Amino acid sequence: MKAEVLTIGDELLRGEIIDSNKSFLSERLLALDIQTDWHVSMRDEPQDMAQAFRQAAARADVVLVSGGLGPTRDDLTTEVLAHTFGRKLVLDEASLEEIRAFFARVGREMSENNAKQALFPEGADVLPNPVGTAPGFCLEAEGTLFFCMPGVPSELKRMMDEQVLPRVQAFQVRQGGSPVVVRARLLRTFGMGESTLDAELADIAAGGDVSLGFRTAFPDNYLRPVARGASEAQAEERLEAVCRAIRERLGPLVYGEGDDTLEVVVGRALAGAGRSIATAESCTGGLIAQKLTEVPGSSGYFLGGVVAYANEAKEAMLGVPGELLRDHGAVSDPVARAMAEGVRARFGSDFGVATTGISGPTGGSDEKPVGLVHVAIASDEGTHAEAFVFPLDRTRHRQLTAQLALDWVRRRLAGAPLEGPTLMRRRGGASAPTATPARGGAA
Amino acid sequence: MKAEVLTIGDELLRGEIIDSNKSFLSERLLALDIQTDWHVSMRDEPQDMAQAFRQAAARADVVLVSGGLGPTRDDLTTEVLAHTFGRKLVLDEASLEEIRAFFARVGREMSENNAKQALFPEGADVLPNPVGTAPGFCLEAEGTLFFCMPGVPSELKRMMDEQVLPRVQAFQVRQGGSPVVVRARLLRTFGMGESTLDAELADIAAGGDVSLGFRTAFPDNYLRPVARGASEAQAEERLEAVCRAIRERLGPLVYGEGDDTLEVVVGRALAGAGRSIATAESCTGGLIAQKLTEVPGSSGYFLGGVVAYANEAKEAMLGVPGELLRDHGAVSDPVARAMAEGVRARFGSDFGVATTGISGPTGGSDEKPVGLVHVAIASDEGTHAEAFVFPLDRTRHRQLTAQLALDWVRRRLAGAPLEGPTLMRRRGGASAPTATPARGGAA
Repeated sequence: MKAEVLTIGDELLRGEIIDSNKSFLSERLLALDIQTDWHVSMRDEPQDMAQAFRQAAARADVVLVSGGLGPTRDDLTTEVLAHTFGRKLVLDEASLEEIRAFFARVGREMSENNAKQALFPEGADVLPNPVGTAPGFCLEAEGTLFFCMPGVPSELKRMMDEQVLPRVQAFQVRQGGSPVVVRARLLRTFGMGESTLDAELADIAAGGDVSLGFRTAFPDNYLRPVARGASEAQAEERLEAVCRAIRERLGPLVYGEGDDTLEVVVGRALAGAGRSIATAESCTGGLIAQKLTEVPGSSGYFLGGVVAYANEAKEAMLGVPGELLRDHGAVSDPVARAMAEGVRARFGSDFGVATTGISGPTGGSDEKPVGLVHVAIASDEGTHAEAFVFPLDRTRHRQLTAQLALDWVRRRLAGAPLEGPTLMRRRGGASAPTATPARGGAA
Repeated sequence: MKAEVLTIGDELLRGEIIDSNKSFLSERLLALDIQTDWHVSMRDEPQDMAQAFRQAAARADVVLVSGGLGPTRDDLTTEVLAHTFGRKLVLDEASLEEIRAFFARVGREMSENNAKQALFPEGADVLPNPVGTAPGFCLEAEGTLFFCMPGVPSELKRMMDEQVLPRVQAFQVRQGGSPVVVRARLLRTFGMGESTLDAELADIAAGGDVSLGFRTAFPDNYLRPVARGASEAQAEERLEAVCRAIRERLGPLVYGEGDDTLEVVVGRALAGAGRSIATAESCTGGLIAQKLTEVPGSSGYFLGGVVAYANEAKEAMLGVPGELLRDHGAVSDPVARAMAEGVRARFGSDFGVATTGISGPTGGSDEKPVGLVHVAIASDEGTHAEAFVFPLDRTRHRQLTAQLALDWVRRRLAGAPLEGPTLMRRRGGASAPTATPARGGAA
């Protein structure tokens, strides 16, 4: 069974946005062992759209279409698809009611344009959109199954998983089914570069029924083991074996699986241990607190934090002694320690973490270059602080620093050694995220 | 002049990576007034690649190809392109030397496979790659100019800017130049939904030499006016006229242009007015501080903030009276006001902004439902607080709340009325971001 993904919109072809829908859709199809042969994007131009629809019908069994279902004048997918395959447009009363109900529910008035979203090609199977106003639809044309979905990623994802995939599976069964079952998993790692990971794992999943993919998602690196089998049980068993081998090799470098971000893993560990945390941030500017509180239920273990940008704030809000700031400067080991200990005392939390550094692009000196950062963690186990130089742009410097601080909480809760991303150097590799240990490190 | 972008690689079609090369390349072409009509991605399959090359040659003047120039057996771009257009492969001695020199420079041994990267189709113009091992090339075939570049984004970007764009410009001149000049701009708006914007602006840029695109980038909506003219001056003049008309119609809903995020605009206004800010965040959990400090130079006006999740933290760190918390609850108008005034007093800042709400998914009650949020701003002009119910998921609830708080700072600095995204109701429209006014609103 062959698939093709079409995404539609002038904004894509002008390069205004990076289109993540294509990779999402293809990844989901792969779980059903359906390979995508083509990704094609085109402008909101009826002739181009018709050409793409005809070509896709000729070379694919399943075609996933994203975009062009909105209420505005650029949104032409339904109209052009119907015209290409000689279908009339018909009003779906149920969809019109649902669009009306959606607007009533959120307390807004429905504009005239939105009524257009209840028109579908004759013979189409309407796909409800519980999180937006544009329903999707499925249409069989010339033996090919077209699924049209809204371009908004959150709406597309839900429609793909709840409406499209079950229909694709049913279509597979009607076509005689697939004898191969594919299972994949995502392992999340932090602290080792991609090429070093590749070298470390060279003998694992090197071919045959299992394969191993790598993906950088700064500041993390993801591993994607994929296993094939004649049955679901066989594929799962092979997948489980390769995951076990990877975890044995990498130890605490693997922090989680699937959708579990580091802040989710840290939150679960804090909740499980019945311990609480507070944050004292200078260069990360609230990023650590923001990550922790992105997790539902974080009020159970996150007490709060201070973003202390000005020196006066470090003194007044965190109790950092003025003499430390004068003698060592705000970006220093003693100040990082005092911040972590201070926020822990002020909030009465079990853990205090702190960051102070120079994320750039300016503000550095010969002695304290742009990229220098001190990270500290305070708890009953004592206070640990270390300095790094991350030669990265401002945004990535902050991301890496925040992730490192969270990773220290995870490692301390798990009884694992506190490591910076420098450990990839100790292991003899060399890759992003780049890190150089700096003065004052007390590892 | 028409362009097409082809990206090649199994990993793209498996959905393992999000392909950002396509948008980068199209954006760069647009600066030369060259519209990309198609983005096509395919696997490392010679037949598919040949089909895409032939189709692109038939419908485009310039074709940009990314990927498949590496040293491995999957890398087939050069071979297939040569074969498709009946060219022999020839060894380029100079490139072989450069590849050797590259390996010597980085202290690695050159593998046999790398020599393959010095083979090019007969008649090709080699494009040096100073930051990697794979040179690119330019080949004219059937009147179409193909540019083949490595898929690694950093290598591709440098080759595009330094090698490809000058050749495309020269090609434009040889073709007699383009009589049409295109200029586009991005206007950023906050507070009105996409379909309402479309309706409000229906008579503006409705066709002819100017057009208007819409894009949702939650919680903002972007407008993209595009103007064409016979000269740069004419296109600019038309663009300026349509932008002026939009700004007159929408007033303070337009907060910025181009890459200027709201936090950049707010930061510039604060710096320009010589005023400072501090943040007191409950439900946004540090997001406002994180946004403000993402801007380089923000230490000039951002003094710091408190993330006060626990009630004790609201009392101890912000001086919110315990009786207010007891009498009204943490999610209330009086507490939001006390937080904004408290953080302003503690940090000695000109502005204090505060958020307290229930971002969900749990924690609501009949009286205080999930989605309820109180936002407050305190300054010399006085304190203003208002309550909203945003029926959104946790992440988007926080994003919308943070953006609203920043927008209030911008509006107060500009002397504009403080509005929530509710103003779209007053104007009779309807679309995301969704907002319903709640009890206690003092607009």
